[in-house]
Amino acid sequence: MKKIYLDHAATTPVAKEVLETMKPYFSEKFGNASTLYSIGKEAKEALNRSRKTIARIINARANEIIFTSGGTESDNLAIKGIAFANKDKGNHIITSKIEHKAIINTCKWLEKQGFKVTYVSVDKNGLINPEDIERAITNKTIIVSIMQANNEIGTIQNLAEIGKICRKHKIYFHTDAVQSFCKIPINVKSMYIDILSASSHKIYGPKGVGMLYINRKVNIDPLLHGGNHEYGMRSGTENIAGIVGFAKAAEIISQNMKKEGERQIKLRDKLITEVNKIKDAHFNGHPTQRLPNNINFWFKGVEGEALLFRLDGKNICASTQSACSSYELKPSHVLTAIGLAAEQSHGSLRFTLGKDNKEQDIDYVIEVLPKIIKSLRRISPFK
Amino acid sequence: MKKIYLDHAATTPVAKEVLETMKPYFSEKFGNASTLYSIGKEAKEALNRSRKTIARIINARANEIIFTSGGTESDNLAIKGIAFANKDKGNHIITSKIEHKAIINTCKWLEKQGFKVTYVSVDKNGLINPEDIERAITNKTIIVSIMQANNEIGTIQNLAEIGKICRKHKIYFHTDAVQSFCKIPINVKSMYIDILSASSHKIYGPKGVGMLYINRKVNIDPLLHGGNHEYGMRSGTENIAGIVGFAKAAEIISQNMKKEGERQIKLRDKLITEVNKIKDAHFNGHPTQRLPNNINFWFKGVEGEALLFRLDGKNICASTQSACSSYELKPSHVLTAIGLAAEQSHGSLRFTLGKDNKEQDIDYVIEVLPKIIKSLRRISPFK
Repeated sequence: MKKIYLDHAATTPVAKEVLETMKPYFSEKFGNASTLYSIGKEAKEALNRSRKTIARIINARANEIIFTSGGTESDNLAIKGIAFANKDKGNHIITSKIEHKAIINTCKWLEKQGFKVTYVSVDKNGLINPEDIERAITNKTIIVSIMQANNEIGTIQNLAEIGKICRKHKIYFHTDAVQSFCKIPINVKSMYIDILSASSHKIYGPKGVGMLYINRKVNIDPLLHGGNHEYGMRSGTENIAGIVGFAKAAEIISQNMKKEGERQIKLRDKLITEVNKIKDAHFNGHPTQRLPNNINFWFKGVEGEALLFRLDGKNICASTQSACSSYELKPSHVLTAIGLAAEQSHGSLRFTLGKDNKEQDIDYVIEVLPKIIKSLRRISPFK
Repeated sequence: MKKIYLDHAATTPVAKEVLETMKPYFSEKFGNASTLYSIGKEAKEALNRSRKTIARIINARANEIIFTSGGTESDNLAIKGIAFANKDKGNHIITSKIEHKAIINTCKWLEKQGFKVTYVSVDKNGLINPEDIERAITNKTIIVSIMQANNEIGTIQNLAEIGKICRKHKIYFHTDAVQSFCKIPINVKSMYIDILSASSHKIYGPKGVGMLYINRKVNIDPLLHGGNHEYGMRSGTENIAGIVGFAKAAEIISQNMKKEGERQIKLRDKLITEVNKIKDAHFNGHPTQRLPNNINFWFKGVEGEALLFRLDGKNICASTQSACSSYELKPSHVLTAIGLAAEQSHGSLRFTLGKDNKEQDIDYVIEVLPKIIKSLRRISPFK
């Protein structure tokens, strides 16, 4: 029986057309984009084409797109780059309690370097109140970083409102769009976004590639110093095959975004409705303002990791924010922020849909999941 | 006519066997190595196998190898990571005037953050006197960073001697081995190396992958904060296809290192001997203590970029350190450090051999190059 993959927020397989587009850049058009002769120029041209493709999707200019090694590097570059370049103006950063670890742990490190960070709270659905951002602003604030949509619970923030506040106070606005890029619309102009992170492997592109949109007016230090590639903002020989693959993936996925989003919302809501019927199943995240592909629950008296293994045994790949599943052995900071106790997030389960999931996959999960939960509760020490 | 590629120090094509090894990890074994279910485990196992392969080559342990996005990231992580983690102990860094820009520009940025850097000089062959390193050490010195072999002129440093000095003074010793890894032997134990950078795309592996060896006793901060991948030292979803490709490339190339080195030295020395016969051709770098694949000259009254275009017209890919070829429009800091005037480095030319170059490639260059130089001098404004 084939695997039913429902963990697309973790990573996605590279699409066939994407891999085909990448192939010539490994061994034939392998030139270094910084060199002057013909095969270097092929690489340079591919790089520039990719920049244009990505820029178009977010309504930016090509020369505002910097390619990186992924979402984590983009987030680190955004926050540290702005912090170090603007430390004469101020040392205060505003973010939220439910940001990705790439933001939270970057901020924690910056606190050790003398920066101050405000971690704004969220409501029980994971939504930030833009007024809380405005209230947190001081005359030392240099950047606000708020993700477009949360990777665990799928909640989508009111970015345009937050962006407007930042613009009013002349503070840089960064958004981590790693989970939302090419899934829901984003527009750096109408949402007043100065810096934006995205990643390739979440949208059927290769791993090891990401991008950072940087508005040309932003004062930012590089994170990787060296040969001054990428307009001096990100040194290191460009990973042309990866970049070309990322751009192809974004091109394909963005073209079909609206229709595919509607299709996934139907599957998502069917699964949510059915899982809600399981006894002591608790829904996490915002009921409507959420990613089309995200389903998140916690189950009383169930251990997330055990649940995952049972599902794997039935060929279903899902995800848990159980403490055991993380490197830090701590309960998820996101589930904690929306009010879950440690033992509740211990029983969490996330499904994230993808382009190849069909209704029968959902039906199979609906058939299998209640039985597994029942069986786990029978042997649970928590009940 | 097929291209004669003689710019292997810039980048190399991905070897066929390497690409074959990578392929399953794009769309089939695509799991996130951090996840718990079966396809995540496949990724994790591939990651660990790759770590072992790389570790063996430099005489390290597998858990001392951290995968990065390339040589530039590895160098930035090494220098900044040690600087920030040890700033309570001292703020002094020692490096050389001929390091790669990834080191030099990282050091320059750290100077703006309050660190002090000594850039040790080299002799006319590009060789560092280890005694100069020892003389530069103060009680504030926290790291010495010296490359194993230079990317422009190929000179190989006496690493073991420098390492011994660092160990004696209990100072961390980092080496940038990006150009030398799998070309000449390196041994982190016998050379007293605490941290070592290497890159995949210089050895027929894919671009966008590199590694940092970190001795477990080293106190170092991460550069990319986030989900604590790579033993907490480098966050970001692992680029499994790239990492597997890097390890395969290193495995293949290291097995044949000695024999291939000897073969290349013969070709190298033949080319050097013949180019030396050209009027006003000046050899750069160390005559014997140099990379097996590096040939570097400067030609009086010739402009490097023009030379490159003429060679490209004859299907030969080479490299120049002419100012026009760099993003900064400055003469090469390496050629300046070995005593060349700006107009001399302006006429520089580098050939770097690779595994697929045959003697007839060299013979063709020997046939073509003198004519091009003669013709360029005829029209030169410099003569």
